[in-house]
Amino acid sequence: MSAVEGTRAGRRPGESGTREAIADAARRRFAELGYDRTTIRGIAEEAGVDPALVVHFFGSKQELFLKVMELPFEPEEIVPQVLEGPKSEAGVRLARFAVGMIENQDSRNVLTGVLRAAASEPHAAELARELVANRVVAAFARSLAVDQPELRANLIASQVVGLIMARYVIRVEPLASLDPQALVEAIAPNLQRYLTRPL
Amino acid sequence: MSAVEGTRAGRRPGESGTREAIADAARRRFAELGYDRTTIRGIAEEAGVDPALVVHFFGSKQELFLKVMELPFEPEEIVPQVLEGPKSEAGVRLARFAVGMIENQDSRNVLTGVLRAAASEPHAAELARELVANRVVAAFARSLAVDQPELRANLIASQVVGLIMARYVIRVEPLASLDPQALVEAIAPNLQRYLTRPL
Repeated sequence: MSAVEGTRAGRRPGESGTREAIADAARRRFAELGYDRTTIRGIAEEAGVDPALVVHFFGSKQELFLKVMELPFEPEEIVPQVLEGPKSEAGVRLARFAVGMIENQDSRNVLTGVLRAAASEPHAAELARELVANRVVAAFARSLAVDQPELRANLIASQVVGLIMARYVIRVEPLASLDPQALVEAIAPNLQRYLTRPL
Repeated sequence: MSAVEGTRAGRRPGESGTREAIADAARRRFAELGYDRTTIRGIAEEAGVDPALVVHFFGSKQELFLKVMELPFEPEEIVPQVLEGPKSEAGVRLARFAVGMIENQDSRNVLTGVLRAAASEPHAAELARELVANRVVAAFARSLAVDQPELRANLIASQVVGLIMARYVIRVEPLASLDPQALVEAIAPNLQRYLTRPL
């Protein structure tokens, strides 16, 4: 964040600061405008740099997208953490983590950016599939001592993706304005079932 | 369907046949390509008509979108039907209806078209919100004799929207290839909770 402010205030951040400022600007614009409407020029303007510098660091728009859109958490670390502890409360722990993540502006920018892009651009759908499949599903498959861990991870992902779409993209009420704690309580038992109950 | 074939085979369907053929072609293209990549020209080509005729019948791309993207079911009829019967099986009935709907190619075209567009185009997000809010949520609110019927309808919509995204847009496995009957069983208890249990 300070790198972005630095750029905007006209100070000269180092190369890694500029790169990070461009990546931040890109994530914000992909999240707000979707993939198709986001341009290299717009990203450059928001980051306060020349468009050529964006291309220099990240290449084409598609390459840039693939580079800046990374999962806002490390499934290999988070999934075992969430699953550790009383099994009967795994749903609440997962709901807390998921709601905390989507309520955080930066994480939400990445997730809505990936979903918006996945909806309009086959390459981005592929990226979203890779992120979900190779990282999240694999982490659940390693940590869940139940049948069909991959399908369970898919179903959990479907509920979280649907929440992001309904609450932040479509913005349907009353879900869009629901208090985060109430949201945790509303979804926790459903996640609990996907985690531990017979499918 | 026969209207489309009629058009393609070069026969002259009536005005309503042509209109329906254009609407069908539009729904297919919006679903397959997303809103931004769909063009009036492409729709005209697929329907076997002149682009001017598409504009004549439907106006701009956005007007066309709003006109052809209607819910593939009548919530005012379907929701009371699904909720009628033993309360303990409402989740299964709703899951069967939802899976049947998204497994049907025509309905799926409309729903994925609306979601793809909602993700990339604020007007379409507004349309999706209107469809969900004014029609589906209202129908649930009238039929559900429990607390917070609107929120329950939102949560059900979030699960169904997430399924469409995960199964048909992102296509994550094993969910994308899951047998429809297994899908009904996997989601029914979760829909049951949103329908009838304390939130």
